[in-house]
Amino acid sequence: MHASPEPRIIRVHPQDNVAIVVNDGGLPAGAQTADGVILREHVPQGHKVALQDIPAGHAILRYGVAIGRAVSEITRGSWVQESLVEMPDARPLENLPVSTRTDFACEPLEGHTFEGFRNPDGTAGTRNILAITTTVQCVAGVVEHAVRRIKAELLPRYPNVDDVVALEHTYGCGVAIDAPDAPIPIRTLRNISLNPNFGGQAMVVSLGCEKLQSSKLLPETAQAEAHARCVVCLQDERHVGFDSMIRSIMEMAEARLKILGARQRETCPASDLVVGLQCGGSDAFSGVTANPAVGFATDLLVRAGATVLFSENTEVRDGIDQLTARALNAGVADALVREMAWYDAYLARGGADRSANTTPGNKKGGLVNIVEKAMGSIVKSGSAPICGVLGPGEKAAQKGLLYAATPASDFICGTLQMAAGMNLHVFTTGRGTPYGLAAVPVLKVATRTDLARRWHDLMDLDAGKIATGTATIEEVGWELFHMLLAVASGKKTWAEHWKLHNALTLFNPAPIT
Amino acid sequence: MHASPEPRIIRVHPQDNVAIVVNDGGLPAGAQTADGVILREHVPQGHKVALQDIPAGHAILRYGVAIGRAVSEITRGSWVQESLVEMPDARPLENLPVSTRTDFACEPLEGHTFEGFRNPDGTAGTRNILAITTTVQCVAGVVEHAVRRIKAELLPRYPNVDDVVALEHTYGCGVAIDAPDAPIPIRTLRNISLNPNFGGQAMVVSLGCEKLQSSKLLPETAQAEAHARCVVCLQDERHVGFDSMIRSIMEMAEARLKILGARQRETCPASDLVVGLQCGGSDAFSGVTANPAVGFATDLLVRAGATVLFSENTEVRDGIDQLTARALNAGVADALVREMAWYDAYLARGGADRSANTTPGNKKGGLVNIVEKAMGSIVKSGSAPICGVLGPGEKAAQKGLLYAATPASDFICGTLQMAAGMNLHVFTTGRGTPYGLAAVPVLKVATRTDLARRWHDLMDLDAGKIATGTATIEEVGWELFHMLLAVASGKKTWAEHWKLHNALTLFNPAPIT
Repeated sequence: MHASPEPRIIRVHPQDNVAIVVNDGGLPAGAQTADGVILREHVPQGHKVALQDIPAGHAILRYGVAIGRAVSEITRGSWVQESLVEMPDARPLENLPVSTRTDFACEPLEGHTFEGFRNPDGTAGTRNILAITTTVQCVAGVVEHAVRRIKAELLPRYPNVDDVVALEHTYGCGVAIDAPDAPIPIRTLRNISLNPNFGGQAMVVSLGCEKLQSSKLLPETAQAEAHARCVVCLQDERHVGFDSMIRSIMEMAEARLKILGARQRETCPASDLVVGLQCGGSDAFSGVTANPAVGFATDLLVRAGATVLFSENTEVRDGIDQLTARALNAGVADALVREMAWYDAYLARGGADRSANTTPGNKKGGLVNIVEKAMGSIVKSGSAPICGVLGPGEKAAQKGLLYAATPASDFICGTLQMAAGMNLHVFTTGRGTPYGLAAVPVLKVATRTDLARRWHDLMDLDAGKIATGTATIEEVGWELFHMLLAVASGKKTWAEHWKLHNALTLFNPAPIT
Repeated sequence: MHASPEPRIIRVHPQDNVAIVVNDGGLPAGAQTADGVILREHVPQGHKVALQDIPAGHAILRYGVAIGRAVSEITRGSWVQESLVEMPDARPLENLPVSTRTDFACEPLEGHTFEGFRNPDGTAGTRNILAITTTVQCVAGVVEHAVRRIKAELLPRYPNVDDVVALEHTYGCGVAIDAPDAPIPIRTLRNISLNPNFGGQAMVVSLGCEKLQSSKLLPETAQAEAHARCVVCLQDERHVGFDSMIRSIMEMAEARLKILGARQRETCPASDLVVGLQCGGSDAFSGVTANPAVGFATDLLVRAGATVLFSENTEVRDGIDQLTARALNAGVADALVREMAWYDAYLARGGADRSANTTPGNKKGGLVNIVEKAMGSIVKSGSAPICGVLGPGEKAAQKGLLYAATPASDFICGTLQMAAGMNLHVFTTGRGTPYGLAAVPVLKVATRTDLARRWHDLMDLDAGKIATGTATIEEVGWELFHMLLAVASGKKTWAEHWKLHNALTLFNPAPIT
């Protein structure tokens, strides 16, 4: 499809005094919109045009929210550039509305299923993967060597197993393992190995002398005998020479491949999905096309009884009042505030604040500051009540819409959502990223048709057609919902097709030594 | 070789009131040493035995230094366990001896050379590697795919090029890029791409919208035209589809392979070596066997005019007075103190201190605390004057013995030493680690013969023969020196043989977002 030749702008909320330009390449001075606004200058695609005169000091409204104040008068038809917008202070974390929203449309959505791998603990995998986790970076080279051989020599005999994945990371030693914030990376690693896509069969390779002893990675129920069955320790005296280490890993892997390989996909209700939401490389369209469509799909998933995780502390911080208002109860609202306050303090300790979030690409894409970015990011969470909050690295223990508190960094957010139990990942992008994960399928949604067209074999879904008016939010939301069920059942995403994936990246706010 | 059947202990300094047990498996109660000490209980290998009665509150001396005070009376022949040793406070950073040592034996050592790759900037590479650096984790999947294809399709045509290495990392976006500490990871990445082993031909793959714009990774001399020749930007509009991205990377890589492939090894003086020193998985033998031998080789290298980098802040902190005493001048001493003070504050900010350094393996290996570990670690630096200090991620601009301030984490220290310009890496280990780097050869030295025997195809040199008395520190030091020249000339280390390497791991003390 081609860009509309008609000048086209989008105003999100009836009270907004700005709108964003839809047309590829932007709009020239003199262009007149359907609402009769005549552009005084060229306005790039995704950037804002003033719909009325905005006096100096007056609020600039988008999503019905003040994203800033005018530094000087902005006349109707002008480009509302970053330099003209003064960013407001962060909303204080007191006197927030708590559970004031009650207009939830939650009637159950029934009859939707996918073909998944049923796990002993009741969860379901969307992929059937042998995970080899590691206590420490030191063992990474040996594990990589072993994984290459397992893939070449063993995996072909187990066609029901999708892949063998090494859970490599940079934690485990040279870190202050007793520091106040150390539980975050430790529980993250432990919970990742319990991800539904690993079928309860993750094994551990340890070095021996590291700070993160393997016992800290195993579930508490694992006794000494179980430990011997699922941990290969390279410094163990029985290892004489490199090959004996590789043999130990391959033997343990094969025992697990036999168990995983005997499994078949079976019909699972949509309520077994645990969907992580994320956006990266955002632009001004993120909050207008892709994220609203994801929000619509989120509502469908929640109505179907699934778990949906939304995240990214700095990208919801400015909308904390919207979140507490949607909290199921005061306990959830308190937990939301606690996570925001912790993150404010974490950033301040390092001499930064939430405004460090926006990127050059965000700005090029029309987002003037973190307030505007946050308003577009929150939309992914749809309209359901928020029924729980997870600290970074914690595992979800309930269904419904959950706030998983994570940094906004794509790789760290994805890693923490994996720890939370995510078995399916939705990622929206405006500027474009080839993001992927090795162990969880990532379905990528483009905010603009231009990107979807150029990156035709990297983007799984084009939400840009909402901006051009050729599809509604509801239509794209349903399309995404059905695509999620198909991917959960085994359909490959583009990232899986090309085997593109990013490194696990732990959130370690504690010092290294 | 086999463990000596004779009870054998090592006292490092004439004033020491403890000595460590050498024998594999330790020594039983009743065993009598050559000095006439009769053991009152079993003492494990590497652990300390009291050589005289030590009253409660008295100093426990090893390396002639108080590594702690006796919690209660320790009788002659007893095992000096961790629980009996009270750790002293860190030495204050005031009133330190400055440049008081003058007894340096520095006569030039001439005539030693290696066969290296001469670079346009005057440095020399020990390997000839095409490096593809990245601005941000987002591009890692695409770069890995491209590197696989370059290795399969292009590299075989350039037999003089040793390898193609992707410089993957987790920095670049989702980070507070203007925070006070952000210059550390940024300069680290920029300086790594200038490592001598990349022949001045590193290329960059960027996404486009990330915070770490590619201009921040290029040398300041690079102009717009040069930028176009060494940066592939995935979001560039000319890229339509995944394959066009891969093609762009491969085309740029091939242009560089042609340049690198035309180079031949030529004779270089030993003064072109930049040797990074590190220890990991240390035990009580580290400071008695491997590290003193490395210290001897360090003196030889410095006398030959080479650059030697020693590091690991928390492992020298307790010996800061030794370092300031060896500082070439007051400016160097000030810089040493400045780096220690910065690191003290960094640890304190995260609720930790230098004592967070020691690991379960260190303790199992006989090291009771960080003071004892530090005394054994510093020995690697030999006896030459310290003539310069590098902040984390800075590039060496002078020759001689330099203190490169880094955390002790193996992967982070190695990464920062690569940024400093290291073209050869020496790594000593007591417990054993398969550590390696993709772009710089790592020569691994075992502190114990038992480890060298079991890990016969992972350890490059056995320094344990110093403990068993079959070789002297000087002999092993010379052996290491000659081995370094051979490896610099192309001889493969075991880590290279098995292609074992660890991930680059940046030191980012600034917050992520």
